[in-house]
Amino acid sequence: MKVTKKIVLHEEEMPRQWYNILADMPNKPAPMLNPQTREPVSAQDMYGLFAEELANQEFTQERFIDIPDEVRELYRIYRPTPLVRASGLEKALDTPAKIYFKNESVSPVGSHKLNSAIPQAYYNKKQGIKHMTTETGAGQWGSALSIACKHFGLDLTVFMVNSSYEQKPYRKSVMHTYGATVIPSPSMTTEVGKEMRKRFPNTAGSLGMAISEAVEMAIKQPDTRYGLGSVLNHVCLHQTIIGEEARKQMEIAGDYPDVVIGCFGGGSNFSGISFPFLRDNLTKGFKTRFIAAEPESCPKLTKGKFEYDFGDTEGFTPLIPMFTLGHDFEPAAIHAGGLRYHGAGAIVSQLLKDGFIEAVDVKQLDSFKAGVLFSQVEGIIPAPESTHAIKAAIDEALKAKEEGVERVILFNLSGHGLIDLAAYDRYFAGELN
Amino acid sequence: MKVTKKIVLHEEEMPRQWYNILADMPNKPAPMLNPQTREPVSAQDMYGLFAEELANQEFTQERFIDIPDEVRELYRIYRPTPLVRASGLEKALDTPAKIYFKNESVSPVGSHKLNSAIPQAYYNKKQGIKHMTTETGAGQWGSALSIACKHFGLDLTVFMVNSSYEQKPYRKSVMHTYGATVIPSPSMTTEVGKEMRKRFPNTAGSLGMAISEAVEMAIKQPDTRYGLGSVLNHVCLHQTIIGEEARKQMEIAGDYPDVVIGCFGGGSNFSGISFPFLRDNLTKGFKTRFIAAEPESCPKLTKGKFEYDFGDTEGFTPLIPMFTLGHDFEPAAIHAGGLRYHGAGAIVSQLLKDGFIEAVDVKQLDSFKAGVLFSQVEGIIPAPESTHAIKAAIDEALKAKEEGVERVILFNLSGHGLIDLAAYDRYFAGELN
Repeated sequence: MKVTKKIVLHEEEMPRQWYNILADMPNKPAPMLNPQTREPVSAQDMYGLFAEELANQEFTQERFIDIPDEVRELYRIYRPTPLVRASGLEKALDTPAKIYFKNESVSPVGSHKLNSAIPQAYYNKKQGIKHMTTETGAGQWGSALSIACKHFGLDLTVFMVNSSYEQKPYRKSVMHTYGATVIPSPSMTTEVGKEMRKRFPNTAGSLGMAISEAVEMAIKQPDTRYGLGSVLNHVCLHQTIIGEEARKQMEIAGDYPDVVIGCFGGGSNFSGISFPFLRDNLTKGFKTRFIAAEPESCPKLTKGKFEYDFGDTEGFTPLIPMFTLGHDFEPAAIHAGGLRYHGAGAIVSQLLKDGFIEAVDVKQLDSFKAGVLFSQVEGIIPAPESTHAIKAAIDEALKAKEEGVERVILFNLSGHGLIDLAAYDRYFAGELN
Repeated sequence: MKVTKKIVLHEEEMPRQWYNILADMPNKPAPMLNPQTREPVSAQDMYGLFAEELANQEFTQERFIDIPDEVRELYRIYRPTPLVRASGLEKALDTPAKIYFKNESVSPVGSHKLNSAIPQAYYNKKQGIKHMTTETGAGQWGSALSIACKHFGLDLTVFMVNSSYEQKPYRKSVMHTYGATVIPSPSMTTEVGKEMRKRFPNTAGSLGMAISEAVEMAIKQPDTRYGLGSVLNHVCLHQTIIGEEARKQMEIAGDYPDVVIGCFGGGSNFSGISFPFLRDNLTKGFKTRFIAAEPESCPKLTKGKFEYDFGDTEGFTPLIPMFTLGHDFEPAAIHAGGLRYHGAGAIVSQLLKDGFIEAVDVKQLDSFKAGVLFSQVEGIIPAPESTHAIKAAIDEALKAKEEGVERVILFNLSGHGLIDLAAYDRYFAGELN
């Protein structure tokens, strides 16, 4: 037992603040715009859609935001999460690199999504909201918000992309067990849903459509607000607990990462693991590299345009300055459902534009190959999304081997794949491309 | 944040020895018998079936057995596991009882089974064995032995009860991902399998049949040994790491359990959580109660006979002195597949006979009701097996409330239910009885 396998923190060592990178960015993102007036949107403009404290967090420039006691109390169900030395992977690759991963799969819903679901439900409850709406693709976000709403006594309606509703029945089961209402989208429940079904009678649904439905319901119903699982500043803010913990743990391990890697859908898990380390680049001149790993079939960071675009298909959301493939882009039906989103959050987009972070794209087959190797040497079967980060980490470790350097690599294992095993079946059956 | 939610140990605090309760039992179990000669079986007699060190462990009277470094190294992937204060459940029940659970669901395969799979694969590898065989019902044990064999470079063939093979495809996917060969049982691969298919052309298979097949293959093939996931002394021995950790954690929490509870199939998780505390009853006169929670439909402890019986359907195994429903008992197709076994291990049976432990039976509907409540208040969706322990813990907590006493209850959460969510679907659809 040469190396420490897992660095664990006790719950009193859990960070007490989230980190808001807006405070330290040399170029702040351009403002979100009202699509009608083209005027900048303010926090107050969003109060009808989001709980007020969440809307305020979207705009704040405070460097650190206190995590409420009620949120920390629930975080303790699974946090702090372990930082793990991927010694099995290092051995399999025969690399001089040291590979660490932050294991967010230990949350009861199996992914990092709970980190933002808990505060979102909490701030809604605090404001007296009775009902939340949201959308979910692969189902990870919907599961997380379901248990968070259950805890705070809020009703939740989840619009689940229809193809996932049919193909991923276990995710639906999780949400049902937690007491949420799950509706396949597009549905006949909303005007926009009806309209979409008229326009596209055979559609399998998309995240953008489901967002439109959830937003419509939130705006029309009394005492109801909407919750989003990625992209927005306040969601990335909540996820920084991942990186803040990892900083403490890397210090205990006696290492500091040369490269930090996260898979990339809308940006929340990547931001979560990266921003607390990126702070040292922005404020202390550190030279750590940050790599966002996106699927080749949905390459907004590597091949998208930087421009104002909508967050949803219908155009209900404000215009966001971002790298995007276009809000009507229909990504291929890859198994990493959580990465099938046309755009990137405003902060990440600005950081990419300014050269503070990098992006790589990963082919689906390569991602599963990396996932199977990881499963066999580390035991944990990763979520199809997380396999993208693993593939990028393996590439960096092999590069270190070529160069003969002891590079320190840190990646975020955003979730496990136990509810998406049909994807692995298809990989083994040779049905993926 | 009044109470500590999770008691975590660092990996260097992981116990270095398993506890062998045989050393402290006032009445040792009667010997296993050769079914032909009715003579006691020796360790040597079992060398053809099990790795020698495992066969020796089956008979040893040593109080503590050192855990090999190679095993501890792999344990560190998920151990020490957290001891959790079920504060959400306490609140929901409005009970003065303090409820703790040991969270074995954090293992990468989602259950406690890895605790014995790792040493079994290790001792086989050490002896130069190339190939292992085993059976699996719900699939938890097969998954665990798959990743353990992969790590030590052993081939593994798993005979999976046919009904599970069809109904629980995700378990099969896990085993495939870890590189094992999975064969639905009864199969045409073994003589006994062919014979059973002739005799029972429409059988859904059973754990007893699958054991017979795995044993036949292990005996006939060169360099091959068999591994069993429960019942036997050496399996219960390995599982005591659960209770040894829990002892340290309860001490940190400043409590000692008045009641210890585990669900009961063959006995391994119940033994694992119980024996290290039961030691204090046996050697120091403590009065802790120990409750085995079995399904009403497979009630060997509460309604079985104490007699010599086989461990498998065909009668390949030695005769074991145990509480049994008869080796040809066909349990109803309940969802807690891991509890569908006709007998109990020899040690647990003797302890029950001598009044050191108690048993309760739990109706399937009550177990799921308890599981849903637990999911909603603690976040973790439990395995159908583990819901039996939860139900028993809830009953004890409510009794404490009636009596107005602050009882300390500890139960083992043997696994999560994320791979068995179809069972919850059927519960919500009102299809269970």
